[in-house]
Amino acid sequence: MDDDTATEILGATFRALCQHGCAALTVKDIAAEADRSKATVHYYYDSRENLCREFLDFLCERYTARILDVDGSTPREELDSLLDTVLTDERQTPGQEFRTAILEIKAQAPYNDAFRTQLAKFDAVLFDRFREIIAAGIETGEFDSAVEPAVTAQFLVTGITGAHARHVATDRSIDQFSEAITRCVETDFRAETPVEATR
Amino acid sequence: MDDDTATEILGATFRALCQHGCAALTVKDIAAEADRSKATVHYYYDSRENLCREFLDFLCERYTARILDVDGSTPREELDSLLDTVLTDERQTPGQEFRTAILEIKAQAPYNDAFRTQLAKFDAVLFDRFREIIAAGIETGEFDSAVEPAVTAQFLVTGITGAHARHVATDRSIDQFSEAITRCVETDFRAETPVEATR
Repeated sequence: MDDDTATEILGATFRALCQHGCAALTVKDIAAEADRSKATVHYYYDSRENLCREFLDFLCERYTARILDVDGSTPREELDSLLDTVLTDERQTPGQEFRTAILEIKAQAPYNDAFRTQLAKFDAVLFDRFREIIAAGIETGEFDSAVEPAVTAQFLVTGITGAHARHVATDRSIDQFSEAITRCVETDFRAETPVEATR
Repeated sequence: MDDDTATEILGATFRALCQHGCAALTVKDIAAEADRSKATVHYYYDSRENLCREFLDFLCERYTARILDVDGSTPREELDSLLDTVLTDERQTPGQEFRTAILEIKAQAPYNDAFRTQLAKFDAVLFDRFREIIAAGIETGEFDSAVEPAVTAQFLVTGITGAHARHVATDRSIDQFSEAITRCVETDFRAETPVEATR
């Protein structure tokens, strides 16, 4: 028994969550997915709730690292790369199942302090990253100085959250939102935008 | 036993849903809230799933009526009134509990055809209403002809969905989004916008 086993169990939790959803997920499902006994899972995580919290921490850490890691030679490239990470990568298998599980966790947040704290922390990480990139783009003159970093970052995080939720609830494609955002960045963000291209 | 009882049970479902959440909701809770026996609830709705589906229909009908009813003497007034309906009214008690229950239902949608169909229908109603109002405003010359009704309506529905989801998941206020949208309408939608006010 070692730390690798603990991490392995979190990986199994991810796969079990995608298969069964959050509400129906049991320690038995996770043990089956990890090919371990329920006792082993309980040795590392003493309750289902504790396991779920640890899993969300693990997920947020991984996702935060990806968000902090996006790079590019200019703020515009960084912005494109970040949008790609949050909108494109998530479309990959098992994207839909995973997003559904995350939406279930969000719906549990008002009843679960640990979930709410972790989701708020992650929301803030995403917001800060967008705000920093936009501010850097204004600084270098790549983005229009009329773009307000904080307001725009709030819009982007809200829109991304909505695009994911609509995709789960109604099967509406994220691509449409992704294309609209890209067009918006092309026209609204660009410095010295001619008046006819401001939308 | 009459239609009023059936509607009364749906009202009790709403209150029970706000109290217990969707996943934990039982017919017993609904019966207690309606001050009826479980047998009476079952007489009208033969299964919990059937009751949940009927309840979602009932909710969407009421909400659709409110959305179609928004009026104003100009498209701009109609737009303000619609944004008020979807962003302000929902803040009222028991707004938070209700939005949480709706988010739970959204997270169930991939596993439930009836939920997904109804949520998609409602999503389309909201989208159509925004698109119509924006198109009417361009027609009357009140909104800038560069605003694209369909693209903008998608943005608004996505943003509203995201504002509600973020509010449930992280407790972030809807007001901030509401104010940002109002500013955006003030500046971006207005016909003959001077270039320095396009953001």
